[in-house]
Amino acid sequence: MGMLDKVGADMTVAQVMAEIGKRARAAAAPLSIAPAEQKNKALLAMADSIIAQSAAILEANKIDVANAESAGTAASFIDRLKLDEGRLNGIADAIRAIAGLKDPVGDVIAAWDRPNGLNIERVRTPLGVIGVIYESRPNVTADAGALCLKAGNAVVLRGGSDSAHSSRAIHAALVSGLESAGLPRDAIQIVPTTDRAAVGEMLKGLNGNIDVIVPRGGKSLVERVQNEARVPVFAHLEGICHVYIDASAELDMAVNVVVNAKMRRTGICGAAETLLVDRKVADSHLVPILEALSAKGCEIRGDADVVARFANAKSASDADWSTEYLDAILSVKLVDGVGDAIGHIGQYSSHHTEAIIAQDEKAVERFFNEIDSAILVHNASTQFADGGEFGMGGEIGIATGKMHARGPVGVEQLTSFKYRVHGNGQTRA
Amino acid sequence: MGMLDKVGADMTVAQVMAEIGKRARAAAAPLSIAPAEQKNKALLAMADSIIAQSAAILEANKIDVANAESAGTAASFIDRLKLDEGRLNGIADAIRAIAGLKDPVGDVIAAWDRPNGLNIERVRTPLGVIGVIYESRPNVTADAGALCLKAGNAVVLRGGSDSAHSSRAIHAALVSGLESAGLPRDAIQIVPTTDRAAVGEMLKGLNGNIDVIVPRGGKSLVERVQNEARVPVFAHLEGICHVYIDASAELDMAVNVVVNAKMRRTGICGAAETLLVDRKVADSHLVPILEALSAKGCEIRGDADVVARFANAKSASDADWSTEYLDAILSVKLVDGVGDAIGHIGQYSSHHTEAIIAQDEKAVERFFNEIDSAILVHNASTQFADGGEFGMGGEIGIATGKMHARGPVGVEQLTSFKYRVHGNGQTRA
Repeated sequence: MGMLDKVGADMTVAQVMAEIGKRARAAAAPLSIAPAEQKNKALLAMADSIIAQSAAILEANKIDVANAESAGTAASFIDRLKLDEGRLNGIADAIRAIAGLKDPVGDVIAAWDRPNGLNIERVRTPLGVIGVIYESRPNVTADAGALCLKAGNAVVLRGGSDSAHSSRAIHAALVSGLESAGLPRDAIQIVPTTDRAAVGEMLKGLNGNIDVIVPRGGKSLVERVQNEARVPVFAHLEGICHVYIDASAELDMAVNVVVNAKMRRTGICGAAETLLVDRKVADSHLVPILEALSAKGCEIRGDADVVARFANAKSASDADWSTEYLDAILSVKLVDGVGDAIGHIGQYSSHHTEAIIAQDEKAVERFFNEIDSAILVHNASTQFADGGEFGMGGEIGIATGKMHARGPVGVEQLTSFKYRVHGNGQTRA
Repeated sequence: MGMLDKVGADMTVAQVMAEIGKRARAAAAPLSIAPAEQKNKALLAMADSIIAQSAAILEANKIDVANAESAGTAASFIDRLKLDEGRLNGIADAIRAIAGLKDPVGDVIAAWDRPNGLNIERVRTPLGVIGVIYESRPNVTADAGALCLKAGNAVVLRGGSDSAHSSRAIHAALVSGLESAGLPRDAIQIVPTTDRAAVGEMLKGLNGNIDVIVPRGGKSLVERVQNEARVPVFAHLEGICHVYIDASAELDMAVNVVVNAKMRRTGICGAAETLLVDRKVADSHLVPILEALSAKGCEIRGDADVVARFANAKSASDADWSTEYLDAILSVKLVDGVGDAIGHIGQYSSHHTEAIIAQDEKAVERFFNEIDSAILVHNASTQFADGGEFGMGGEIGIATGKMHARGPVGVEQLTSFKYRVHGNGQTRA
């Protein structure tokens, strides 16, 4: 990055970030009209560079892992941070899959004719410059960079400090790919400092040079975004996902789905954090579900009714209902039917994903209509809340806001649109 | 509004606005699941109430008009402010037309099946609570209230102080309609004070109780929104619209379209403000166009080349290229082909609407691809930039931002969406 490495020496964080913003805006113009073939050539070259530069990336990753270990970081965190050849192959394959997606730019979303002969088309366009603020999974550097490029956007990446060396090494590989396809290297920039002031600058929008911020993270990032963001945000924040077991639920399905929703992977935002069980089936359904979870090593934190029925359960505190554990812990509560479940979810949900297990279609309809979350699931695991599982072929995350993007954010969600109106001399009366 | 009339006496502006926000959020929940029939019943009753209460509305409007006259306000402004029976009939008819539109809520935008048997639907939902900040056209009170209701949203309206009496009288009629259909009166609230601090409170989001702000206005509102908005915004701001006459343009079409784009109505945001003419056809096209405009009473402000060719033209200053006249004035400049036109528009456009008059499809394609404005028009007037003309059956305005809504904002643009996923016990591998 040349000059940008001088942060702290010759330039303040604000100056560096302003320069990054200017460069991103300048790169966005040629990117917005780059043909699909050129973007795909860059993406394939990026994937190849990840493999070709794997020694350097793994070397950088060792520094991050060693730093995390000497800081006494949790093993689960270090596992997510650690790269090996298999994971690098996975990262490269994910970029190649994005190259294989249809280019969304120029896609005609809708077209119609007016009685006066005007033909109107709504056509996808890039958003412009996207700022992505994320935590310590180094693969996000590649995923976010590749998705933004595919949609014709410039991107400014700001990863967590724990993975800074890994992310910069991956970024260097992405830039090689861009250059070999003749695209501007500033199409994908990475913030060259771990100073948190850089996040503040991004949230202020880099002097109008960021069009939208994608924040991915937990409570502290949520609060910072709410307090400081001056540009549009596709929030990718907590996933306090609920599973509700209706009185009409089939027991076997309920057990299987809850165990999968909680335990398949506990560290993802689509993992279930709270289980609500209809009091009418407390005797038949509650204990088998909790036993299956316990057998998998899940800690149960229940309300008084749950604790009375399941000796292995701890007492839940008020804070449990609004906690995203991202761990093998589940809060559990009895409720009086679907209306009571909807009320609890309305109070505590983070508007990510909620599931109902039920055979009663009326209960499902009410659950689907009255809950205002991005994804509602009937008789399936909350862990399907994923762009790949939705068939979008890659995602930057799951948006929990209601503006523009909601749910999985893939290449289409990283676009805007414009209208193209064709006439033959029409004037308005 | 009872208590809310106590602003300034018992309650501060901030307290009143906080209460309005709480009430709007409470109203949004039942509205979001109100059936189409109930919303349409309310809309038809609102239209009837406008007519039934026309004496009171016209009486209130007289006060606004008298105040404007004694303040020496421009005649064109007073004309937009003034109501009569014909205009009230128009307002009522517009509400009835909105009742006749398809209810967007629950509309399945997309649906697909996954290989594992999951069925995924993307379904329209209300946005929640919308805040509309507008200037002094009293009909916006009715249009915005009706459109937000149709899309299942609660709305907080803040009109200009010049039309405060008219807007409150119209609002009273809307509330009668809501109540007669059994919908909460707080579904459509109007800010009961003209204190500009109320706008500041809305831009801060009323403690999380406003989901999106729709600001409609000129430069001072633009700046205020940019500095203060802490919630998502569908900006409806300036329309610095351009018409470019390519060397391939047919002369008659160019004359007709430019005259219509500028002079049909000069006070709307889709009116042309700048004309760019390809230097290659300066001799053949420029003077006939400017003569036709002059004959209609349009003032021409040209660059040096234009002034040299058309004696009637004044000299444009730098400020002219970024001025939305909303009046019978046009800035005019010669350019070197479509690339130069695109460059000028990129620098000065407010991203609203730009038109090209050309027979050369290559020039059109470049103009359409490279300009990042909400609406691009080929061989037709910029004044078609209108929800009704687009076939949307009503609009709250033209959004100039790129997030969520862009171009005409009708009922569909006032919705969000959620995903409904149907399974039969699927778990993720």
